[in-house]
Parts: sequence; C-alpha cells; structure tokens
Amino acid sequence: MTSKKLVNTVAGCADDALAGLVACNPNLHLLQGHRVALRSDLDSLKGRVALLSGGGSGHEPAHAGFVGKGMLTGVIAGAVFTSPAVGSILAAIRAVAQAGTVGTLLIVKNYTGDRLNFGLAREQARAEGIPVEMVVIGDDSAFTVLKKAGRRGLCGTVLIHKVAGALAEAGVGLEEITNRVSVVAKAMGTLGVSLSSCSVPGSRPTFELSPDEVELGLGIHGEAGVRRIKMASADEIVTLMLDHMTNSSNVSHVPVQSGSSVVLMVNNLGGLSFLELGIMADAAVRSLEGRGVKIARALVGTFMSALEMPGISLTLLLVDEPLLKLIDAETTASAWPNVAKVSVTGRKRSRAAPAEPLEVPDSTATGGLASRQTVLVLERVCATLLGLEEHLNALDRAAGDGDCGTTHSRAARAIQGWLKEGPPPASPAQLLSKLSLLLLEKMGGSSGALYGLFLTAAAQPLKAKTDLPAWSAAMDAGLEAMQKYGKAAPGDRTMLDSLWAAGQELQAWKSPGANLFHVLTKAVQVSEAGTQPPRKTGLEPLGSHLYVTLNKLISFLYLFPPLNRDRSTYLRGTVRLREMCSPSTVSRT
Amino acid sequence: MTSKKLVNTVAGCADDALAGLVACNPNLHLLQGHRVALRSDLDSLKGRVALLSGGGSGHEPAHAGFVGKGMLTGVIAGAVFTSPAVGSILAAIRAVAQAGTVGTLLIVKNYTGDRLNFGLAREQARAEGIPVEMVVIGDDSAFTVLKKAGRRGLCGTVLIHKVAGALAEAGVGLEEITNRVSVVAKAMGTLGVSLSSCSVPGSRPTFELSPDEVELGLGIHGEAGVRRIKMASADEIVTLMLDHMTNSSNVSHVPVQSGSSVVLMVNNLGGLSFLELGIMADAAVRSLEGRGVKIARALVGTFMSALEMPGISLTLLLVDEPLLKLIDAETTASAWPNVAKVSVTGRKRSRAAPAEPLEVPDSTATGGLASRQTVLVLERVCATLLGLEEHLNALDRAAGDGDCGTTHSRAARAIQGWLKEGPPPASPAQLLSKLSLLLLEKMGGSSGALYGLFLTAAAQPLKAKTDLPAWSAAMDAGLEAMQKYGKAAPGDRTMLDSLWAAGQELQAWKSPGANLFHVLTKAVQVSEAGTQPPRKTGLEPLGSHLYVTLNKLISFLYLFPPLNRDRSTYLRGTVRLREMCSPSTVSRT
Repeated sequence: MTSKKLVNTVAGCADDALAGLVACNPNLHLLQGHRVALRSDLDSLKGRVALLSGGGSGHEPAHAGFVGKGMLTGVIAGAVFTSPAVGSILAAIRAVAQAGTVGTLLIVKNYTGDRLNFGLAREQARAEGIPVEMVVIGDDSAFTVLKKAGRRGLCGTVLIHKVAGALAEAGVGLEEITNRVSVVAKAMGTLGVSLSSCSVPGSRPTFELSPDEVELGLGIHGEAGVRRIKMASADEIVTLMLDHMTNSSNVSHVPVQSGSSVVLMVNNLGGLSFLELGIMADAAVRSLEGRGVKIARALVGTFMSALEMPGISLTLLLVDEPLLKLIDAETTASAWPNVAKVSVTGRKRSRAAPAEPLEVPDSTATGGLASRQTVLVLERVCATLLGLEEHLNALDRAAGDGDCGTTHSRAARAIQGWLKEGPPPASPAQLLSKLSLLLLEKMGGSSGALYGLFLTAAAQPLKAKTDLPAWSAAMDAGLEAMQKYGKAAPGDRTMLDSLWAAGQELQAWKSPGANLFHVLTKAVQVSEAGTQPPRKTGLEPLGSHLYVTLNKLISFLYLFPPLNRDRSTYLRGTVRLREMCSPSTVSRT
Repeated sequence: MTSKKLVNTVAGCADDALAGLVACNPNLHLLQGHRVALRSDLDSLKGRVALLSGGGSGHEPAHAGFVGKGMLTGVIAGAVFTSPAVGSILAAIRAVAQAGTVGTLLIVKNYTGDRLNFGLAREQARAEGIPVEMVVIGDDSAFTVLKKAGRRGLCGTVLIHKVAGALAEAGVGLEEITNRVSVVAKAMGTLGVSLSSCSVPGSRPTFELSPDEVELGLGIHGEAGVRRIKMASADEIVTLMLDHMTNSSNVSHVPVQSGSSVVLMVNNLGGLSFLELGIMADAAVRSLEGRGVKIARALVGTFMSALEMPGISLTLLLVDEPLLKLIDAETTASAWPNVAKVSVTGRKRSRAAPAEPLEVPDSTATGGLASRQTVLVLERVCATLLGLEEHLNALDRAAGDGDCGTTHSRAARAIQGWLKEGPPPASPAQLLSKLSLLLLEKMGGSSGALYGLFLTAAAQPLKAKTDLPAWSAAMDAGLEAMQKYGKAAPGDRTMLDSLWAAGQELQAWKSPGANLFHVLTKAVQVSEAGTQPPRKTGLEPLGSHLYVTLNKLISFLYLFPPLNRDRSTYLRGTVRLREMCSPSTVSRT
C-alpha cells in the first residue's frame, strides 16, 4: 500500500506546497497560471541579472526557500521528482525580463529532464531576444568512473544559488556570473547516505533496505547509490563518506586535502532526526579537522531534501577568501541559515565552568555536640527507611512503578556512606544544603528533586538565625518551593499533605514563648493524620492503589538542633509521586 | 528490534549532538564538564539579563539552535527526552552571572522533571545570591479539561525565547521581562498531529499507529494525544486542529477568533517531508483566513522536534504591534528563520504572468502553395509513424520501456489534429517553432523535449533567410542544441547519430551553387548509414537490445520549402533515448 501522507490530493501536492511557501513568505509571489515563485520585489531589480532555478518538487526547502535578496530571483517547480514544464520556465524568464532585469542565469541540477526543459526554455527565450545563460550543476561524488550523463546535481547547488545571488546583488553582469559560478561548481562534491527510502505521494517506497544496511551515494530521488554498506557508527560512516568523496582515484572526487579550506554542508535528506544530524555534523568536523582540512563555514540543516528520506548528504566546497565573502553576504532567503562569519576550525569551542562558590563561614554552627546528635538521628532515619524498603515497594506496585522503597533506600545508603566520610556540618543551613545535594545526586528521579528542593529552600532562613521562628520559616520556605515547582497543593494527596499539616502547626513557634516540645508533638500528630486520604467517594484508605505511605525521611524535622534528643518518633507522609508526575507531564527517563 | 540510527553510542547521543551544533556554530561555546551551550560573546553581556532554557535532547534545533544575540544566552541539555542535571543548570547560571549579567530568567517547558530541576537550580543559585526568575511555559491546547499538571510545554516556547531575547537585548530588566513573557505565554496555544511515532536511540518506537490512523494532540516525547482520528486530507486535519485549539469549551484553548491577529508557527515534528509541511502551512493559512483571523507572521520549519516523528504542530500566538516588534527583532540564533516583517494576511500573493510576445510578421512567408505542400508532407510523415507504432514499441521493449512507438504516435496524432484546425504557418521559422511547441506539449517526455529543442534552435537561422545556407545553419543550430542539453555526442549511439551524419552532408549547401537535390540525397543516405551501430566488440546490429530504429519524424528535413515535392523518402535515425536518460540521471516521472 502507499505511504501515509499529509496531503490533499496526490496530483495537487506540488501546487499546494508551493502555495503554502508563498503564502507564509511575503518575499515571494506566485506567477499566475504557473508553478513559479518569484521575488515580490521583482520590480526593484531593474538593471540586475536575474537568477532562476528549480526542478522537481519534493526537495523542499529547495528551491523556493532560497528565493530572496542575495539569492535566487525565482524558481520553477515541477511535480514531485519531475522536471518543470518548459512553458512555466519560459514564463518565469519573460516575467523577470519584463521587470527590467538585464539577463537571466538558469541554475540547473544535472538531470536529463531539467537540462532539456530549462535548455528549451532558454532557446525559446533567446529566440525572443532575452539574454539567457545556463549552468548545469553536477556535484555528486558517488560514482568513481565517468558516466556519460555526468555527475548528478545535489545539495551543492544551493551553494551556487548563494554565490550567484551575492554576485547578482553586487551588480555583476551575466557573463561574469556565469563564468564565476561555473568555476565554483567544479570545486565541490556531495555524497549522500540513507537508512531507508522515501515515497512519492501515492506511491510505495522507492527502494527497500534491510535493517542492517545503509545506502551510500544515493541520489535525491531515491536512485541507487554506489553501494550498500553494513550499518556502522556515525563516525565510521562519516569517515567512509569523506574517504570516498575525496579519494583522487574517484573521478568525481572533490580535491580536498590537508591544508584545504572548505565550506561544509551537512544536509538532512528529510526524515533524519536533528539529533542524528548534529551527531553526523560532529563526526564530520572531527574527521575533516583530523585530516588537516580547515572548515571555514559549516551549514547544518535541511537544504535539499528527498521527501522524508532518513539520511544526510555531506557537501564540501573548496573556498578562498573572495568566495567566502560571497557565502557570507546577506540574504533574505528564508531557508538560508544564520551563519556566523567566523571560521569553524581554529576557534575555541568551550569555556571553563565557573568554580564552586567558596563556603561562607557560618555563624550558626553549633559545635561538636550537635554534630554528634545529628549523626545519631540520621542513622536512625536511614535504618528505618532501609527496613521499610520491601514494604514501600509493595505499596508502590499498586500505585506506581514499585520503586518507592528502592529509591528511598538509595537515599538512605547515600546518607550512611556520607556520614562515614566525616562529621556533618555543624551549621543547620549547611547541613540541609549538603543533604540536598546528596539526595539530588544519589537519590535521583522526582523524589530526589523534590526533597532537594525542600531542603535547599528550607536552608535559607537558617543561615542567619536558628531560633524557633527561623525553623518555622524554614518549613514554610521548603513547602513553598515544593508547591511552586512540584505543582501540588495541599489536599492533592501528595507527599506535601502531611508536611503541610505539620507546617501549619509550626506556625505557633513564631509566637513569643512558644513551647518547643508541645508544638512539635502536635505537628507530628497532624502530619500523621495528613497521611489519611480525604473522605472522598471512591477513594480507598491508606495502602490502597492510590496511596503509598511511608515512614519518610523528612530529615529536616529531626535535625532541629533544639530537638536533637534522639527521638524515635518520625512523621508519616503520603506520597503519590505518580499523581504529580502523571505520564502526560513527565519527561521520559 | 530497536530503530536504525546514525549515532556513535546510545549513551553519547546528547553529548555528540550538542558538540556538533557547537562545533558548527561559532556563536556557541560548550561549558566544560557540562551539557551546556552558551553564547560565545558572553562577556559582552555585562549589565544585561541572561536567558537560559533547555530540557531533554531530541527536540533539536530546540534549544541550542535558539542561542544567540536577540534570543537565548544559553541552554542546558538533558539526555534524550530526559530533564537536564541540576548541577549543569546551576553551572550555567553561575557562568552567566560571572560574566557580569545582572540576573537570569529560566524559560522552562512545563514537564515535571524540568520544573523540578530548573527550580532546584534556581533555589540553589538564589541561595548564592544570584537573582534568578523562572517562567514555566504550558502552551499545549490538546486537553479539554484541566489537568493537575497543567498544559505541556511545546513549540510555543520558542516564541517565548524570541520575545524574551528581544527584551533582554533591549536592556529590559529581569522583573519586567519575567512579567512580560508570563503574559505572552498565556496568549498562545499549540496542537500536534502525527502519522507515526518516533524512537529514542536504543529503543523501539514509543507507540504504534495503524496505517489509517493519525494521533491528535500528542506531546513531543510521543506521549498519547487526546484521540486517534482516521486519516483524512490535509485540509480536514488542519480544520480539525484549529477547531480544537480555538474552541472556547476547551479549557486549554487559545482565544483566537475572527479579527484576531496571530503569529502562526507550522513546526515539523522531525520526520515529515517539507513538501507536506508546505501543504499543511497552506491549509492552515487558508483555514485561519477563512475564519477572519489575520496572520501577522508565519514561521514554517523545524523548531521543536520529537526526534524523527512524522508530524507537525501548529502554534497560534495572539499578537499586537508591540509584541510583533519583538518577534521581528534581529537575532543571530541559527535556527530562527529569515522572516519578512510584513503581514501574511492582506498582501498580494501573485503577479500576472507576462503576455506571450506578439508574433513579428515574417518576411520569409512563402504563401499558400508552400503551405499546402507542408500539409501533404506532414500528413505523410504522420501516417508513416502511426503505421510503425507497434514495430517501434517492439524494438523499444528490448532497449527501454517499450513506449517509443506510442510516444511517436502521440506526436503524429497531435500534428494531424493541429493540421485540421487550419493551414500551418507559411513561414518556415514559424512552422518549426509551432511544431516545437506542439511536440513539447503533446508528445511529452525526453523525446518531446529533444525534438522541441532541435526545432526551436533550428527555427532561428530561418527567421531572416530561407536559402540553402540558412537551412544548413538551421540543421547546425538544432544539432548544437541537442548536444548541449542532451549531453550526447556523435557516436554515442543516440538519435543524434543519423542527424549528425546528415548535417555534415548539408554543409555543402553553404557553398555557392550547391545542388539542392544531390546534397539532400547524399544526406539521406549517410543518415541511414548512421543508424548502423559502430563496429565495436559486443555490440549487436540494428534491432538489437541497444538500438531502436525508426522511420522518424525529422519533419524539418521534409519541410524545406525548396524541397516540398512530396517525396516519400525519409530519414532513418537511431534512437537510444534510454541511453541518454539512464536511470541515474532521470528525474522520476
């Protein structure tokens, strides 16, 4: 069966696609009655040379994406993978001539149909007295022996559009532009590789590849390449490609060697992920620089596609400074990328990461005793969590992916290991900050991030003071951060519920003369109550598929220096991480 | 089995891809030890607000493609579809702070992992005294009822990069930028649709769709959409998408209605052909304008992909003039397209095709007698070709695709039909030109183009004179055009061979007193001899798989006005179109 496509009709594809490009790009006009797009500022081009190109559709953004000031004057599009009509080419030539241009250069990819149809239109236009020249671009480096038909026209054609466009914009004459680009066109090579085929709308894929095969040197219509190779790494494939296209025993090679300066194009043939495009670009830069080649500019993107073909082509163009100026010249063409006018090779590609800020001596450090108490509390909490690992996992299997106990045990073991390295910081703020980093790094996942957020935020109010109001403020700060970034509110049946209830009780510490132990006891009670599900229809009690209850490390509560009495009481909390991290909002991990 | 990918290692994908982007874009630097890309001109940003964004990899060119003057200051990338590390986010914040920026805005897509990790880094940075704000972008218009987690962050995020970037470049402060973009972020909606899934490197596709199904409203990690719909036309799908995303009963709709001004983004999710992207853009423009919506700008391209997912998303952002100025502001970000600062809606999209040039009265017209002779000759040629249809097809079946007779019969019938419409032009030049157009239009294919080329070129020398030297020059011009555009040389065993032989004989007409009939007879003889294959090893004689011989319409020779004696002699020629149009150089038709 034919491939799935987002089209209206098979016959109308080329018209609709060109209409869409023109509709969205105010720099373009359609020529009525023809599949032709022209610069909308055509009438400002009096006395200049016009540049027309085109060919079959299916290679977008080529060629309409390269129409604009500093690039093409217009393009003529054929049906998908089919040469454009002679009548339309002729109409485009007449239109640019009537607008007052002094001559037209046709830039044609080397395919028989394009050569003949553009050639015919040229002859007809010349018979009408319009000066028209034509350059046929053949940049394919696939075939190692000479073919009668010559090298195929591929992505390098876009570079010719750019060079010719810069010359025309500078007011250079038809003959000189023709001569200049003819020379440039001989100094480039392109080679493609693809993981799979593409399919013309209404048709089946143009060829088949087995899962471990890659087609090397194929054309932009799915034509056969030079050979099929076994699937390999990006580096290996790029090396093979560059070897092939620069090998002087290949009659269609581009003579790039150590010391050469090149423009590199890494062209998405249509359906490759941009992730892979970046990886191939990286491989190409490393491989070329490893050969001593200087990459003056690198263009990475979709320039000349073969419908949705999942592959790339590499183009190398030998450049000198004057040619580079033309590549760098301004253009309004929508598909020409923003390229920095700086050499790729030879520049610095990284900067040093900033140093970790120095730790400020903390005036709230509480000394050795508090530190020893902290160790006792943390060890107790860790042991409790480790003992609950299987129970928590079992509860989580009903509600989530069954790793809640594992995750918390990972945290507990990380804390145990850290405690063995030396005494914990004596300052509460530093202690919470360190625990935050530890959980972030070692616990991982959303739990690690949530505990980390809580502890990081809670540490801030404890930097200046560690009295009871400061500890209540610390709880507030932690809760606020959890709500803000976790997008949970009290009552949403998340781990926030019991912490929130405790936090409300701790407000009492902000009143002068508040009783430390009385308030804390109440806070523990309400937070335990907070683990119960709200009485809503359809919600089952604790332990149900919706709730995972755990004796949780809300270590911060146990570390209140005024409370370091090695209590075995700990808070219970509700955890419903899966609710907060519902599949629709979770990045895959 | 896992999908075929151009990668080095699964684990190294995100690093390699970012390294490739940075290597090819001199405007970027990597931050050593982190998956972070920063503007290479960071140290020029003293006193300005820094803008950081990022998220999981696999959405390229988002976000590194949007780093540059006028857009982002830097990005932090996670593994594929995974939130970035807190430590790297913090390192990026520190780096831009150390460079002298006065505060940082984090622009975060609404996914739990991103919210938590960016939030954490923010809290840690604030604890270090760095002013950091954060906006969470949720532009998804898929879900009609409120989800706890809010709307997902999609392609609209790129518009926020642009708006914030323009403000920061203009020197606006952190608080004002934060407030401004928070308002803008509420005025947009995005909806995706895909024909198929994508696959994380090393994994299988994230979901399966049947051949007649389309997923509507899916996320950029292959998360489920709102529903699966039956495959439909581009227009129908776009209408459904716009209905859904602007429907006021959809809680996540964007309030676009008749009279609204919008920026439209048509975003390739990765693997859709740009042909289809153009078709969908065309449908979107028509549908929106049909609703009375004014499209201020339209951006078409790959902005935020989901690896190689073959689908698109549409984003609508409500704009006014001040906001549009920010969208239009200059940027050096490599993936931001060249967009004309002109409204899409309300401008002219086409220009009239130029009129056909007036026919110049021809001084060489030979009057009624010649015209009647022409008709007799052409009818004889046509009848001969029609009688040979099956014979030619049979010969061509050995050499090509067996349609040589059919093609020539189509030409013959076209000429017969044309002759019935009225007398042919009396001037030889006009006659050849008309026949050229007729064959081009009705005969089609490479044959039509080659005959058309021959006749067009041959007509030119006959415009001024029609004496024997002019007819010889006409033959020369036709042969030259055929060789130039057809890329065949004499001896290549193409249709050129017999014509070339005849043309050599006709040189004799250029000498004063040349004998018309004697030279023509010789020309016919040598052109018949020219149909014989050259004596090369391995080549079989006439009628072999390599040659198709036909009694061919080289009408031009029979129409020499001085020769119009109703001769039944005609030239034989060799045709090996398939040789000239070898598969490697022929556009698929």
